[in-house]
Amino acid sequence: MTVDHRFSEEERTAIYRVIAERRDMRHFLSDPIDPIVLKRLLAAAHQAPSVGLMQPWRFIRITDAKIRNAIAALVEEERLRTAEALDERGSEFMRLKVDGIQGCGELLIAALADKREQHIFGRRTLPEMDLASVACAIQNLWLAARAEGLGMGWVSIFDPVHLAKLLKLPVGSKPIAILCLGHVAAFYPAPMLKIAGWADERPLEELLFHNTWGNIEK
Amino acid sequence: MTVDHRFSEEERTAIYRVIAERRDMRHFLSDPIDPIVLKRLLAAAHQAPSVGLMQPWRFIRITDAKIRNAIAALVEEERLRTAEALDERGSEFMRLKVDGIQGCGELLIAALADKREQHIFGRRTLPEMDLASVACAIQNLWLAARAEGLGMGWVSIFDPVHLAKLLKLPVGSKPIAILCLGHVAAFYPAPMLKIAGWADERPLEELLFHNTWGNIEK
Repeated sequence: MTVDHRFSEEERTAIYRVIAERRDMRHFLSDPIDPIVLKRLLAAAHQAPSVGLMQPWRFIRITDAKIRNAIAALVEEERLRTAEALDERGSEFMRLKVDGIQGCGELLIAALADKREQHIFGRRTLPEMDLASVACAIQNLWLAARAEGLGMGWVSIFDPVHLAKLLKLPVGSKPIAILCLGHVAAFYPAPMLKIAGWADERPLEELLFHNTWGNIEK
Repeated sequence: MTVDHRFSEEERTAIYRVIAERRDMRHFLSDPIDPIVLKRLLAAAHQAPSVGLMQPWRFIRITDAKIRNAIAALVEEERLRTAEALDERGSEFMRLKVDGIQGCGELLIAALADKREQHIFGRRTLPEMDLASVACAIQNLWLAARAEGLGMGWVSIFDPVHLAKLLKLPVGSKPIAILCLGHVAAFYPAPMLKIAGWADERPLEELLFHNTWGNIEK
């Protein structure tokens, strides 16, 4: 006999709604975020699963305007490099808004901790599971932010070595996300890169296989 | 004037509740999962953010008992290797239950797609952002499963090369998670590795810095 551990229908609807309505935002209003709300968001991130319970995430809250400006400059530098690497799509890329660093109410950096080599559980053959854990924490933060009516954008257009130096990260740690967080005028009705015509989404059916790779059941 | 995009209080409570009550499960009941529910869970995963909208996730649903057994054998092999690598904590590790592969109602493999090198957006300096995207998808699935009253466990104790061969993954792709999914008698009241005394959690305050690494504001 299966015990029913389900959330109520209303609760389930809320959870599916937040998953569906979360967006990678790049347009923000500059209004500040209530510190109590920010605390709730970080607490949600901190409740993420982590491989071997190692909790490899570190967050740095940026309140110093000079540091925010320096981060924006690092992103601008990498934006130009990315455009170059994109070759024929470079100019199309340059027309996209790729971050909201200067406009958002709160700027957070998510990083991998140092001394991760001490953690072997679940990582002997897949050491990158630490990054997966930090990503789960960021997804928690993202969903909680959407529920609080706040937008978030994950920017990965930066040189991690330069950002690590700017924020005085110790050897062995690594910044993996610049998180722009804040109030928004409106949430995009679909992923911004889709609206902008950069990429189209593939349906789940094409990405779901049965027993072996490529085996799509009818 | 800030527009209020918040979810209702009841909705927000549900979202924080599911984040708090999600657990990495290893004990399952063998009852099957309703196929309609499974579809909802995979759809939730598929709504994850992805770097450059590349959707690098691929899921393989394992229904063949022989393949499930072979996967269980791969995990058992790596469990022994991990115990060896853990040295003095090896015997303690061997007493832990690290997966629910043989007992769970559904077994899924999450993998990184092949041909990811074609995607440069947000990945020129951080190519591993594709893994972060798959982890976000898995976290969505995990939260949706909890809301549906189902447990999930992310197993990363396996050799990805051997698992790739077993499931006929193409060159360039990589399995990153064995996902055990199913009904449970009860959810752990705290992370199982904490209950088992393997590791203790650190409070958020120790992992949150201000402007530069290590700067903990009072």
